[in-house]
Amino acid sequence: MSDSQLIFDKLHEECGVVGFCCEKNSDVASLCYYALYALQHRGQQSAGIAVNDDGVITAHCDAGLVNEVFDESLLSQLGRGTMAVGHVRYSTTGHERRLNAQPMVVNHVKGIMALAHNGNLTNDAELREALEFSGSIFHSTSDTEVIAYIITKERLRASSIEEAICCAMYKLAGAYSLIIMSPQKLIAARDPYGFRPLCIGKLPDGGYMFASETCALDSVGATFIRDIAPGEIVICEKGQLRSITEHCNKCTPSICVFEYIYFARPDSYIDGYSVHLARQKAGAFLALEYPVDADVVIGVPDSGIDAALGYSKQSGIPYGMGFIKNKYIGRTFIEETQASRERGVRIKLNPIASTIEGKRVVLIDDSIVRGVTIARIVKLLRDAGAKEVHVRSSAPKFLHPCYFGTDVDSKETLIACKYTDEELVSMLGVDSLGFLSVENVTKLNGEGKTYCTGCFSGIYPCPPPPPRKKSKFLQKISQTEKE
Amino acid sequence: MSDSQLIFDKLHEECGVVGFCCEKNSDVASLCYYALYALQHRGQQSAGIAVNDDGVITAHCDAGLVNEVFDESLLSQLGRGTMAVGHVRYSTTGHERRLNAQPMVVNHVKGIMALAHNGNLTNDAELREALEFSGSIFHSTSDTEVIAYIITKERLRASSIEEAICCAMYKLAGAYSLIIMSPQKLIAARDPYGFRPLCIGKLPDGGYMFASETCALDSVGATFIRDIAPGEIVICEKGQLRSITEHCNKCTPSICVFEYIYFARPDSYIDGYSVHLARQKAGAFLALEYPVDADVVIGVPDSGIDAALGYSKQSGIPYGMGFIKNKYIGRTFIEETQASRERGVRIKLNPIASTIEGKRVVLIDDSIVRGVTIARIVKLLRDAGAKEVHVRSSAPKFLHPCYFGTDVDSKETLIACKYTDEELVSMLGVDSLGFLSVENVTKLNGEGKTYCTGCFSGIYPCPPPPPRKKSKFLQKISQTEKE
Amino acid sequence: MSDSQLIFDKLHEECGVVGFCCEKNSDVASLCYYALYALQHRGQQSAGIAVNDDGVITAHCDAGLVNEVFDESLLSQLGRGTMAVGHVRYSTTGHERRLNAQPMVVNHVKGIMALAHNGNLTNDAELREALEFSGSIFHSTSDTEVIAYIITKERLRASSIEEAICCAMYKLAGAYSLIIMSPQKLIAARDPYGFRPLCIGKLPDGGYMFASETCALDSVGATFIRDIAPGEIVICEKGQLRSITEHCNKCTPSICVFEYIYFARPDSYIDGYSVHLARQKAGAFLALEYPVDADVVIGVPDSGIDAALGYSKQSGIPYGMGFIKNKYIGRTFIEETQASRERGVRIKLNPIASTIEGKRVVLIDDSIVRGVTIARIVKLLRDAGAKEVHVRSSAPKFLHPCYFGTDVDSKETLIACKYTDEELVSMLGVDSLGFLSVENVTKLNGEGKTYCTGCFSGIYPCPPPPPRKKSKFLQKISQTEKE
Amino acid sequence: MSDSQLIFDKLHEECGVVGFCCEKNSDVASLCYYALYALQHRGQQSAGIAVNDDGVITAHCDAGLVNEVFDESLLSQLGRGTMAVGHVRYSTTGHERRLNAQPMVVNHVKGIMALAHNGNLTNDAELREALEFSGSIFHSTSDTEVIAYIITKERLRASSIEEAICCAMYKLAGAYSLIIMSPQKLIAARDPYGFRPLCIGKLPDGGYMFASETCALDSVGATFIRDIAPGEIVICEKGQLRSITEHCNKCTPSICVFEYIYFARPDSYIDGYSVHLARQKAGAFLALEYPVDADVVIGVPDSGIDAALGYSKQSGIPYGMGFIKNKYIGRTFIEETQASRERGVRIKLNPIASTIEGKRVVLIDDSIVRGVTIARIVKLLRDAGAKEVHVRSSAPKFLHPCYFGTDVDSKETLIACKYTDEELVSMLGVDSLGFLSVENVTKLNGEGKTYCTGCFSGIYPCPPPPPRKKSKFLQKISQTEKE
Repeated sequence: MSDSQLIFDKLHEECGVVGFCCEKNSDVASLCYYALYALQHRGQQSAGIAVNDDGVITAHCDAGLVNEVFDESLLSQLGRGTMAVGHVRYSTTGHERRLNAQPMVVNHVKGIMALAHNGNLTNDAELREALEFSGSIFHSTSDTEVIAYIITKERLRASSIEEAICCAMYKLAGAYSLIIMSPQKLIAARDPYGFRPLCIGKLPDGGYMFASETCALDSVGATFIRDIAPGEIVICEKGQLRSITEHCNKCTPSICVFEYIYFARPDSYIDGYSVHLARQKAGAFLALEYPVDADVVIGVPDSGIDAALGYSKQSGIPYGMGFIKNKYIGRTFIEETQASRERGVRIKLNPIASTIEGKRVVLIDDSIVRGVTIARIVKLLRDAGAKEVHVRSSAPKFLHPCYFGTDVDSKETLIACKYTDEELVSMLGVDSLGFLSVENVTKLNGEGKTYCTGCFSGIYPCPPPPPRKKSKFLQKISQTEKE
Repeated sequence: MSDSQLIFDKLHEECGVVGFCCEKNSDVASLCYYALYALQHRGQQSAGIAVNDDGVITAHCDAGLVNEVFDESLLSQLGRGTMAVGHVRYSTTGHERRLNAQPMVVNHVKGIMALAHNGNLTNDAELREALEFSGSIFHSTSDTEVIAYIITKERLRASSIEEAICCAMYKLAGAYSLIIMSPQKLIAARDPYGFRPLCIGKLPDGGYMFASETCALDSVGATFIRDIAPGEIVICEKGQLRSITEHCNKCTPSICVFEYIYFARPDSYIDGYSVHLARQKAGAFLALEYPVDADVVIGVPDSGIDAALGYSKQSGIPYGMGFIKNKYIGRTFIEETQASRERGVRIKLNPIASTIEGKRVVLIDDSIVRGVTIARIVKLLRDAGAKEVHVRSSAPKFLHPCYFGTDVDSKETLIACKYTDEELVSMLGVDSLGFLSVENVTKLNGEGKTYCTGCFSGIYPCPPPPPRKKSKFLQKISQTEKE
Repeated sequence: MSDSQLIFDKLHEECGVVGFCCEKNSDVASLCYYALYALQHRGQQSAGIAVNDDGVITAHCDAGLVNEVFDESLLSQLGRGTMAVGHVRYSTTGHERRLNAQPMVVNHVKGIMALAHNGNLTNDAELREALEFSGSIFHSTSDTEVIAYIITKERLRASSIEEAICCAMYKLAGAYSLIIMSPQKLIAARDPYGFRPLCIGKLPDGGYMFASETCALDSVGATFIRDIAPGEIVICEKGQLRSITEHCNKCTPSICVFEYIYFARPDSYIDGYSVHLARQKAGAFLALEYPVDADVVIGVPDSGIDAALGYSKQSGIPYGMGFIKNKYIGRTFIEETQASRERGVRIKLNPIASTIEGKRVVLIDDSIVRGVTIARIVKLLRDAGAKEVHVRSSAPKFLHPCYFGTDVDSKETLIACKYTDEELVSMLGVDSLGFLSVENVTKLNGEGKTYCTGCFSGIYPCPPPPPRKKSKFLQKISQTEKE
Repeated sequence: MSDSQLIFDKLHEECGVVGFCCEKNSDVASLCYYALYALQHRGQQSAGIAVNDDGVITAHCDAGLVNEVFDESLLSQLGRGTMAVGHVRYSTTGHERRLNAQPMVVNHVKGIMALAHNGNLTNDAELREALEFSGSIFHSTSDTEVIAYIITKERLRASSIEEAICCAMYKLAGAYSLIIMSPQKLIAARDPYGFRPLCIGKLPDGGYMFASETCALDSVGATFIRDIAPGEIVICEKGQLRSITEHCNKCTPSICVFEYIYFARPDSYIDGYSVHLARQKAGAFLALEYPVDADVVIGVPDSGIDAALGYSKQSGIPYGMGFIKNKYIGRTFIEETQASRERGVRIKLNPIASTIEGKRVVLIDDSIVRGVTIARIVKLLRDAGAKEVHVRSSAPKFLHPCYFGTDVDSKETLIACKYTDEELVSMLGVDSLGFLSVENVTKLNGEGKTYCTGCFSGIYPCPPPPPRKKSKFLQKISQTEKE
């Protein structure tokens, strides 16, 4: 979790998902709201909730933060029910924010279905093309609509929605953590590699919930049961859980390691391991890999703080509070005008001179993607009187695109692809610079676990999508918005 | 056109449509805005514009009046282009307002397509069911999505979009006036009965436009060319008009007579005839059918005024201004609370005592559907000192549901179905009451023309839809809205 | 009353006022809302309501129309009480809209006071200067704040608020219709000339109300009692009315004749006479003063319609419906961009060709101030095929500034000051042109009544203010607004 | 600075002030915006900016956060100028938020004046009464209006605005840090005790600024010059600073010690001393006063973190990250419904189990006022598996009301007044509890400085106001708001 994603040049997670299946009629809209609020860091562009009251689905989605999209009156319009699905989303282009907001609610031959999706299909284009050639129409540009179609097609011959999902999974390639709500069932499915997290919680008043991270469980007082296994389909119906494991144990588990480094909230447990501890460990590894003689260790708020504590503990160099972050971030138009990016950083982040002045500073950031922000932060420290600045990144170098649910799909913007270490040290104006090794990044959760480290190593667990062809017509559907 | 539709118990037209195809890149978003503004009386629940800039379609639709949905910044986001399609809509339930807003923009195998539709399919349910059985998914509950599918399916084998539309028309039953925008063509199509109006105008700066009514042409300075014939498909491409007449002259022309009586704006010409003159004639017929000895003829603003002038001219009884209508109607929450319906009428409509006091009054309204409003208006006149009140309705009695684009689909709410003339006279508190005869209503445009008068006569030009079956699951997709 | 004031080059009334004094605790906020809604034509820039619940005054004022400023939640926040004061306002500059919104609520030595004011002091600058020299501070630029100070100063030695008002009236010069609410009394006061209207109504559930026009009484079901006399102070306390007549009958009654011609709503009675009848009479006088051989008489909606009916009746030339006015005026940004003023008129007003084509038309407008709009309307008629256009203005020529509550304070913009009749005929593109004579304008209400006709004759009932000096510092307080 | 003030039972600072006086015409509205954004923690209820362009003052104030009240369009409406004054405000009742928003702009005999005020007069009621007896009217309930009057009265005979301010200061008692803008001067004044901070910065492009805290200087790149001395008046005119010291050194300097403990931002320097260091020192003193055998020291985010670091350093017990605070706080309606306060805390603050489980925890909070929040936080820790919880407050016990600019004016809500230490330990469910001693709180900035510690000790630097009399009439002016 990091504020920086709102302001700086960071990667963006695509989505957070949540679903509820209560034993009795409840205020599921509010439960969803609280859980999405806890998952807000996974997507700030749009939010949506679909409520199921005895088979009737009522939904609202819009562009904006959870507390901008929903208010008390809207939640009460969504009403009570036994099930609900919620979604927060980051999307790469502003024009499509409202159009692609989820959950997507569709009618099909056997009824109605709401889908919430976190991930990225690698065969989206092929599936879409084949569907179009059979006369399908698409309202959105999102791969969620493709998934809805594939499931619907399978539903024609399958005897149940879960069977349709299971059949569909043979056709879907890439990363997906799905929550699907039918009139009577809530179903969660995780792709066979398990790129994105998904877990199960038990609700205090009976019933179950699914969510991207455990912090969503905490927000509604639910108890963590277990993670959903890669390839697993979990069905919740009438207060009972069932599981389909047909797709399990067919591939090497490959959770995105960046969930630990940056995406997830430190108070979450992902696939059984504390994100906060993983980040502390990253800091400790850094202290071993790149030791330095210094007076104070500070972290870039908020996501560099955990690793800074780990670096401090391992190295014995005292931890200090380096910056005050203005907490009234929210919607400010300043960032949009971008009149002055320099000022932009300073407004959000002000160094505490008493911590820094005359000191040799170790500065821990969670990652260095494009390098613009870190350069500005280093300058803030220099201006505040730092004698030396040693930057340590708790992520390895970003060298390759990600095809599994984040928004870096080109090498052009990755600073580590373009410059040598010496050039980076000079460009960023630092005294030394160190990136966590790929070897150590796979040890953050203890030994023996496997990850997707494609963005660092270029080795992906499954084939990336083929290069995109340009279509005959320009087919951009955009939907302008009042903001 | 009538204000009353905003406030009282009136029928609601379903939609207004407009399309532009300019010779060169223009501010088509603004043209669309002006035209929709002129067609606002045809639908107040949602509005939308899709702009085509060299094959790239950008769209915005939302619940609200045209000037609520769009502002300057949104229009400039929609940008310039050579083509645009616009739509205003009335929908029967508030929950679906935003979901069903048009134009609908869909991607299909051969590109992208924007549809705007005025009318109502009578085989919507059958087509939808068949599509669902072939694995189609539906995002909305509107028959426009069905039309989009049918055209897309035909497009697979057709050599052009217009050919696909022509083939699709063999499958569509009921009322439809369509405007469809493909990457390179703007196409208008009217069902073979011609239930809803649709006309062609020539733009002052080159190019053509299509619109539901001629008042939209006037609003942008376009010249009226001609009406689109029932069954005709008109294609506008590269500044040229072409026509496909394969579906023409296959059925008896059956324009909805209520377009003349109530729906259309008086300054429009529908199928070649002035709406204002038709209404005056309705008043004149009423004077012949139901003469009365009286001192003054007044009309219920706004749509009763034309007929009142006609009644006055025919009868020789002086015309008077009976009411002041508060013109700051807009969005007032008063009507929504319905704290006091009595007060509601009085706030919108205040009698001018000097016209009424001590007088025998002939009061002309355009129609009497549920009877609630007219009863309140009669009471206003009595309170203002009217000696006698003789009500004349310029529409015949509403006795049958409409399946072709208005919102009366049950007899339960129609006052004329439930009571005898004597009962009505006593219930409304009037001295006499007269409805225009069905015979005369078909003469409003001159002799020899044919109409749909199904709502008055129960005789429909084509078969109404079969009674609806209840589906296995409740399938309501609703979408709540901030209002 | 005229829509035109929203769009065209018309005069603007400054304000409408209303006050309620109920026998028991009531929903006075809603009563005020309804009444202000009926008075909306007197001011569209800001609206406000102050509610008095047992001496505690709660108020809300803002820029906007009544139904924009208030919604259900705000009215319920204002709450119930026994008294309330409301105000709608037109102000000349946008920047000051919110700042100068009324009622003004002030604390003074003897408690609290809410003031609503319609009119214009002619000694505002002198009084303000004297107050400033005694150390007073001003939050607004409105003369209402001056009135509040003068009354407060008098209150120091007066034994009651009404005595303070009576003393203050010796110091106030110019036009004022005031409603003042103290903790326990509701007081109305009209300047000794009676420039602006003010009347008394009896509430259906007990108690009284004051209002600028009788249409506000109708909107809440109140019964008209009488007009407040020029110079009269009426006190309502504990359900009883009392009157102070010390300032009555000291001057010639001088109600603004333009209230009859244009400002007031046709359904109102002003100083005992029907506005609608006055306007009809203006049309009849015009027919006598400027007869013409023609085929049809039409009026510019809405305020030219009454006089057109009068002209038609007197001349025997048939009345026709000449234009359709788009009723969805509300807030449209079109007028603000002013991209195309020509288009602006056409969007609001569309001629009905069947009424006009090939006809010799008499066109009645309520007044011609700057001449821009009427020229465009004439062009619309020509384009629609009118053979001849004869314009008649039911107001005499505007030749002099008004100092008593309207916004024309310079001769520079008055078209009739700058051109001869021949020039006007040619500039407006008409076949003939006639203005009602000043002589006849004073006969609209019957013989023997006296008026202020200063704007036509240059003869004012009391001295106009001295020319303004420029102040040492630029002292504009402006307050920007979100709109 | 603390988030908690948005959500929990904390004290509220009344205001933050800022003023700019540039050498040349600049975008002072934006400068003000940035500075207010940095001072947002000092008041979240309303915000305002007044811009001075060559003597013409344009202002906008409203209820809301800085980035809610202002957007780009509003800032550009405020426009450029040479001077500006800004204000953020906390007010005790919602109804008065907009009414009392500052800067207050008033016209007086010598021109116009904008005032921004942080503090609280102790003789407000007396001054107001005397002014009312001389015929003054009050629009607000704020003591800022009283200050405006007192200065205006002095201005009548003073030869300059600064002389008037200097004379007025003899009449004003209590706490005030004022920024006043006249047509040509920007003036800052601090009361002789110096209760509230106020400092001077030099702008990068020439000219000076005044601000409550140095973090506002940082936000616009200004250089800290010095603090304004208690009693000092600083005038900035034509790029030059002058000082009036007539009121200096007449009283014992008495800056509010709570500015260091809680109000100010850690990155600010107040009267020459780092807030962050003061808080660390508070933690260190706590470790000496209340040592305990424990495994981890954690702080309540955000304002307990600094002291927790100090406690950890002094005691040698490792510092840990105890909680994740949801950073998307902003406007959420959750807190308003208060459906579940328990859930409320959990949604904002989630414990990191890996830090806490099985540990003996020292929990540092900045203060304990009403005790509700800390009890809930302790419960969160217990639920997360803490073996022991030892609470330490970096502020002494709150035992007395504050009359100098915070919102605690009664003993009724202060938990430490009502219970013994044993009762508190049991009520809060902790293993031990310790409050910083008053003696040590005065050593946070080094020895020899003097403070106001009235809220802890009951000994005030100057007399508190006399008890309030009830006024004859209920005189509440409230102004409802759309929120």
